[in-house]
Amino acid sequence: MRWSTAYIPTLRHDPADAEAANHRLLVRAGFIRQLMAGSYSLLPLGMKVVTKIEAIIRQEMNRIGGQEFLLPVVHPSEPWKRTGRYDDVEGILIKFRDRRGADLLLAMTHEEIFTVLAAEMRSYRDLPQLWYHLQTKFRDEPRPKAGLLRVREFTMKDSYSFDIDQAGLDRQFDNHFGAYSRIFSRFGLPVIPVEASSGSMGGSDSIEFTVPSPAGEDDVVVCPTGDYAANVERAVSRLDPVADQQVLDAVEDLPTPGIRTIAALAEAFDFAAGPHQIKTLVYMVDGDPTLVLLRGDHELMVQKLVDGLGTAKIRPAEEAEIRPLLGAGPGSLGAVGVDGISVVADPALEGRTGMVTGANRDDHHLRGVDVVRDIAVDRWLDLRTVQVGEPCLRCGMPLEVVRVIEVGHIFKLGAFYSEPLEATVLDEAGVERAILMGSYGIGVGRSMAAVVESHHDDKGIAWPVAVAPYEVVVSMVKIDDEPSAAVADDLYRELTAAGIDVILDDRDLRPGVKFTDAELVGFPFRVTVGPRGVAAGEVELTERATGETVTLAIDGAPGAVAERVESLR
Amino acid sequence: MRWSTAYIPTLRHDPADAEAANHRLLVRAGFIRQLMAGSYSLLPLGMKVVTKIEAIIRQEMNRIGGQEFLLPVVHPSEPWKRTGRYDDVEGILIKFRDRRGADLLLAMTHEEIFTVLAAEMRSYRDLPQLWYHLQTKFRDEPRPKAGLLRVREFTMKDSYSFDIDQAGLDRQFDNHFGAYSRIFSRFGLPVIPVEASSGSMGGSDSIEFTVPSPAGEDDVVVCPTGDYAANVERAVSRLDPVADQQVLDAVEDLPTPGIRTIAALAEAFDFAAGPHQIKTLVYMVDGDPTLVLLRGDHELMVQKLVDGLGTAKIRPAEEAEIRPLLGAGPGSLGAVGVDGISVVADPALEGRTGMVTGANRDDHHLRGVDVVRDIAVDRWLDLRTVQVGEPCLRCGMPLEVVRVIEVGHIFKLGAFYSEPLEATVLDEAGVERAILMGSYGIGVGRSMAAVVESHHDDKGIAWPVAVAPYEVVVSMVKIDDEPSAAVADDLYRELTAAGIDVILDDRDLRPGVKFTDAELVGFPFRVTVGPRGVAAGEVELTERATGETVTLAIDGAPGAVAERVESLR
Repeated sequence: MRWSTAYIPTLRHDPADAEAANHRLLVRAGFIRQLMAGSYSLLPLGMKVVTKIEAIIRQEMNRIGGQEFLLPVVHPSEPWKRTGRYDDVEGILIKFRDRRGADLLLAMTHEEIFTVLAAEMRSYRDLPQLWYHLQTKFRDEPRPKAGLLRVREFTMKDSYSFDIDQAGLDRQFDNHFGAYSRIFSRFGLPVIPVEASSGSMGGSDSIEFTVPSPAGEDDVVVCPTGDYAANVERAVSRLDPVADQQVLDAVEDLPTPGIRTIAALAEAFDFAAGPHQIKTLVYMVDGDPTLVLLRGDHELMVQKLVDGLGTAKIRPAEEAEIRPLLGAGPGSLGAVGVDGISVVADPALEGRTGMVTGANRDDHHLRGVDVVRDIAVDRWLDLRTVQVGEPCLRCGMPLEVVRVIEVGHIFKLGAFYSEPLEATVLDEAGVERAILMGSYGIGVGRSMAAVVESHHDDKGIAWPVAVAPYEVVVSMVKIDDEPSAAVADDLYRELTAAGIDVILDDRDLRPGVKFTDAELVGFPFRVTVGPRGVAAGEVELTERATGETVTLAIDGAPGAVAERVESLR
Repeated sequence: MRWSTAYIPTLRHDPADAEAANHRLLVRAGFIRQLMAGSYSLLPLGMKVVTKIEAIIRQEMNRIGGQEFLLPVVHPSEPWKRTGRYDDVEGILIKFRDRRGADLLLAMTHEEIFTVLAAEMRSYRDLPQLWYHLQTKFRDEPRPKAGLLRVREFTMKDSYSFDIDQAGLDRQFDNHFGAYSRIFSRFGLPVIPVEASSGSMGGSDSIEFTVPSPAGEDDVVVCPTGDYAANVERAVSRLDPVADQQVLDAVEDLPTPGIRTIAALAEAFDFAAGPHQIKTLVYMVDGDPTLVLLRGDHELMVQKLVDGLGTAKIRPAEEAEIRPLLGAGPGSLGAVGVDGISVVADPALEGRTGMVTGANRDDHHLRGVDVVRDIAVDRWLDLRTVQVGEPCLRCGMPLEVVRVIEVGHIFKLGAFYSEPLEATVLDEAGVERAILMGSYGIGVGRSMAAVVESHHDDKGIAWPVAVAPYEVVVSMVKIDDEPSAAVADDLYRELTAAGIDVILDDRDLRPGVKFTDAELVGFPFRVTVGPRGVAAGEVELTERATGETVTLAIDGAPGAVAERVESLR
């Protein structure tokens, strides 16, 4: 490609309102343009990067036996109604009607429709299968932001595995773990795979592939030794044991006039510090009230409640709902003696005694509570948010919390989709069994954004060779100097013939402007061809990431450049 | 690929309701599955064909200087409102609102959004540009049918050219004509380029690329000599001259009790045969009545009226609208003496005299009408439908009408989009000018369907090599016969290593079933490897399209097969 005829609209200034590096640099360097909130057009350079990203994904998916499909973007509602996801809790599903009045929707993911296709299979002999596509998704996010990191329309590689048994599903999950590790490594992304919540996807195990970045929107808990990493929504830690205080044979009333908070209680009574209190929250779960108990100094991680109870229809109860139920308002609530209301409690309370809790009477608490003796706990569920510095469950080292971008996610779905959609096969014994599924996603645009977040400096982007829009820019210093222009042109042709992806900067601009553009756009290598160098039989090769420049003899330049590029692909 | 692990769900029977060959065969041979009316999923074989089709399109687009983009599927309504296309006359545009209440729509094409991007250019020096993408479109067609021929969701290659002057636009249009001819020729499609109506696209010249097929939905008029081809919506022909009859100095009243049709008039009065009558139709055009005049034996082509008047807001007037306007009902209408109503007339009436027309009084006609003398024609517009057998305007040969599939369409748009969307640049003199645009489309799925319509027989599909899902199937006759299975396996590996796209049929099935499947799916070549042949040192090569089989020595087989395949790519 010759830059003079290419459409690369670089801008002199950062776009207004762009904070994240990927947003700032991809717009400024002419890779993308915003169409509306959370929606971007890819310009030619952006498309070139995406094409390389997609090619790498296809290679690695095919390597683990993936077969490429293409499923529609507009879906009928019926399969979504059957899996329960049409009743979209987060409000991100776009729904509309066609001219015949049929309910349709825009795909936010493709589990349902791939499962509908899989339902055509009849026998365990048709399994295993691994199907994928690269397709547009639309999610009506409430707060699109950070350039390509949180958008409404995006391309995703999503794959779906189909197996007769858990061993098969485990194998496909592990194959994906390997493929994803190779894919992100080829993108030049320093990923951390973390244990994650399955969220609204259903299913059991799930692992997120994350890239540390201040532009990220997720927090992950990591052990500095590298032996543990999990999304905060799922992370666990070791707790130092707490010695019970003020153990009593029976619960006693503790008048607490005007006291409504954990801190105020602790200040008023030295036996009632946070670790010795029970925090009582009330949630409406599928419309019914549930008491949620944590240790006074612990914070609830709502996603753990969602995951543990297996429903996303959860919200905090309002005071108007709480008072008729328990006889008191927030600040004086407790679970002692409560009957007919579901109680879930965090294991940090298990076996504890001498605890303080609300009495379900305003201005009264109870002391000397023995959790097991005095409270009818229906379920013990890990519910608390891990804090920085808590010991790693595996090694005891203090945990760290890191801000990350999620670039991929793999899930074991089991029969969550295949059961309602009747995707069953006959097993070897002739028994009908639901196919066990996995689902695996990579955000294409988000991967591009994560590469920029990981590979840029104050001059612009510094693309890894494997995903660079062009691998080399040959920069003509003076286009009207015939000898050096001819050398540049030859070099461009020879590198192209050698299979290198090259752009020739033949624009009629000052060299400084060209170099600034090349650094902004971020081509991994620049070959500078100018009158003085050519007179001396030389050209210069500059590496974008390091800034290092070496001088090459003209004769050997194509070979030397090609070798450098190929070594980094 | 090994067939035993591939997902190729061939069916024993044609799907119910499938009439068109592409529908019947693509479903039965496991290329596609219907998701809902007018919406299909591509299974792996379908995706392989589409990938090859898209690669050919990209090559030829890049060859004429195209740069690949990717624009969103969901659009804001604002640019569509500015071009007037949001007010969608055909009702095929899907519109909805997002969570903030913004009006959005599903792209049925991308003129608006590409023009919005082009509006960023500032100078004639940024031109010419040629931009394209391959992207999903959705059109809520009232009657989706014929498999992939008329669908609601589909992938289209659409390109858009941007030039400073008409000469530049003409050049890009011609470049596309060449690229499209090469593309369809590489697909193995016998295309006829035809002059076409621009329909709702705006602009002037347009050419459709069509493939003759009984499954098509368009009619084109072609001259058997090949010197003329046009869509019926646009076609013209030479008319044999008609000698005027019953020429009178002035119009005379002709009582015609009970006569309401052209035929009845001709029967009652021998001077009033069709060629001597004026057919008077009333249309509401942008809400105002217009009289449309044709010769009595001619039929109106509504699209010509739409194109000629430059508005798609056209409908036949109802009798309740006509009577107050003209004083009579259909069958007695005419334009003589009419004042204040727009009159358009077909040139076949120009200069005619002695004509019969309705008198705008029930049961009365007028005779002796001289069109120029007696009727105030506002515009002369070619309006009539060409009939089979009429003489070619160029050579006089009788024209034919052929049913076709439209696979591509190229348009000169001019400033139709750039003006309302303010895509202007400064020209060499510093004057602001609207960019001149062209728009050019190829239906990807429809191309695949057209290939099947053109290349199939009663056994199945017979893919041209360039777009075949696999070029060669190596068929193991007996998988448990070690010597021949080993030869088949070697052949599969050697052909793959030679860059041939091969599938190995290693399924545990009878050879007859395998051969039937291979013929149904339509691989261009089958190499049959069986115990007897291998014992004799031979394998068989069968060409799908011709059915011809040749025997090859095992040693030379990979080379011989590769050579055959490459010669047909």
